[in-house]
Amino acid sequence: MPDHIVKAYDKELESLGRKIAEMGGIAEKMLSDAMDALIDFDTRLAQATVDSDPRLDLLQRDIEEQAILTIARRQPMAVDLREIIATIRISGDLERIGDLAKNIAKRAIKLAGEMHIPRATIGLRSMHESAAMLLKEVLDAYAERDAEGARAVWIHDADLNALEDSVFRDLLTFMMEDPRNISFCTHLLYVSKNIERIGDHATNIAETVVYLVTGETLPMDRPKGRTTLSEAPTRVV
Amino acid sequence: MPDHIVKAYDKELESLGRKIAEMGGIAEKMLSDAMDALIDFDTRLAQATVDSDPRLDLLQRDIEEQAILTIARRQPMAVDLREIIATIRISGDLERIGDLAKNIAKRAIKLAGEMHIPRATIGLRSMHESAAMLLKEVLDAYAERDAEGARAVWIHDADLNALEDSVFRDLLTFMMEDPRNISFCTHLLYVSKNIERIGDHATNIAETVVYLVTGETLPMDRPKGRTTLSEAPTRVV
Repeated sequence: MPDHIVKAYDKELESLGRKIAEMGGIAEKMLSDAMDALIDFDTRLAQATVDSDPRLDLLQRDIEEQAILTIARRQPMAVDLREIIATIRISGDLERIGDLAKNIAKRAIKLAGEMHIPRATIGLRSMHESAAMLLKEVLDAYAERDAEGARAVWIHDADLNALEDSVFRDLLTFMMEDPRNISFCTHLLYVSKNIERIGDHATNIAETVVYLVTGETLPMDRPKGRTTLSEAPTRVV
Repeated sequence: MPDHIVKAYDKELESLGRKIAEMGGIAEKMLSDAMDALIDFDTRLAQATVDSDPRLDLLQRDIEEQAILTIARRQPMAVDLREIIATIRISGDLERIGDLAKNIAKRAIKLAGEMHIPRATIGLRSMHESAAMLLKEVLDAYAERDAEGARAVWIHDADLNALEDSVFRDLLTFMMEDPRNISFCTHLLYVSKNIERIGDHATNIAETVVYLVTGETLPMDRPKGRTTLSEAPTRVV
């Protein structure tokens, strides 16, 4: 490409990268605020979390459109094309993480009038810490194009899934102990599933980072029953 | 474009459309088989459902790669570009519908040893019928490029969400009646959430069909707390 086109192209890539970073920051804050709102019965913070979701949706659409126009205009090949495809995929996962955090915030609003069972939320706090760490790790791995860091996220997600199993059993026990716990604990079951799915999306992003850096899919099975290497298509791009 | 390039390009679009149709057929069958497996405690059918998911994942990757290569090679504009973007988006939603059906099938396997409460599954059957109808409607709307048909899906999804609310209340009641119902009903709560989310993905596809046909986002709010028109970015592509 002529030099001035290369520069315009670099600017487009930079702009995409900046938008991903902004999305990552919003998603991290939404998760953290939603969990604080849930634990502290803070409906105002919960509503603020819900209100910040449209910004994430807007950024995702922006990234998708800009990425596709860049592909059409510049016809990039190999690593550059992977760079752009990665922004489309990662923005999709971050948008879904925001949706899941929004779901937790909405549930915090619903639960504001219900009987609180503090010991029932202990496991959720651990799950939240684990998911927040995964999200931070994978955003760092993307920023630094660090395939090793991304592989670590993939493995740590298995810990989060194990935590969810344990939370599920605990919540079931509380419900069986006292029927008055059933409604509250049922809502927490959904929250734990939302956090687990945030971990799944962090893992998807990790997979995208490895693909971006190496051009390959991850050479190991996913920790949970997702697509394994033997089933996954080899990516041609 | 020269004639022979136009023909090659049409073939690429046709091939993408065929793959979407295949994905749609697999997703419909997975949903129906997963629900039959759950209701009939048929672990063999449940396992077959789980086993058919990798094909859906493979098709999605295929479509994404082929679509992006087509954009890079042909630099399509306006309606043709929308056609290709639509295949990327729809394949993503169909892949997720398959994941959700797989989750139901896995739960059917888990529940095979548990005490069965037939009246607890009645509401789920209605939800299944409603979701299956949504999925059929939206696949037809895509095949016929029918924006009106797609808009109907959007509205019908509100019925599915109302059904889920009612199933949620019923299951909570069964749990409170008898603690021995708690474990089984908790699993069914997750199933109802999976079906509801299948409806959300059908609605996403409906939105994509309207965008494909008209170039616009839907001129109404989404039935549930998703992105509303006032929040949604106007698509520039």
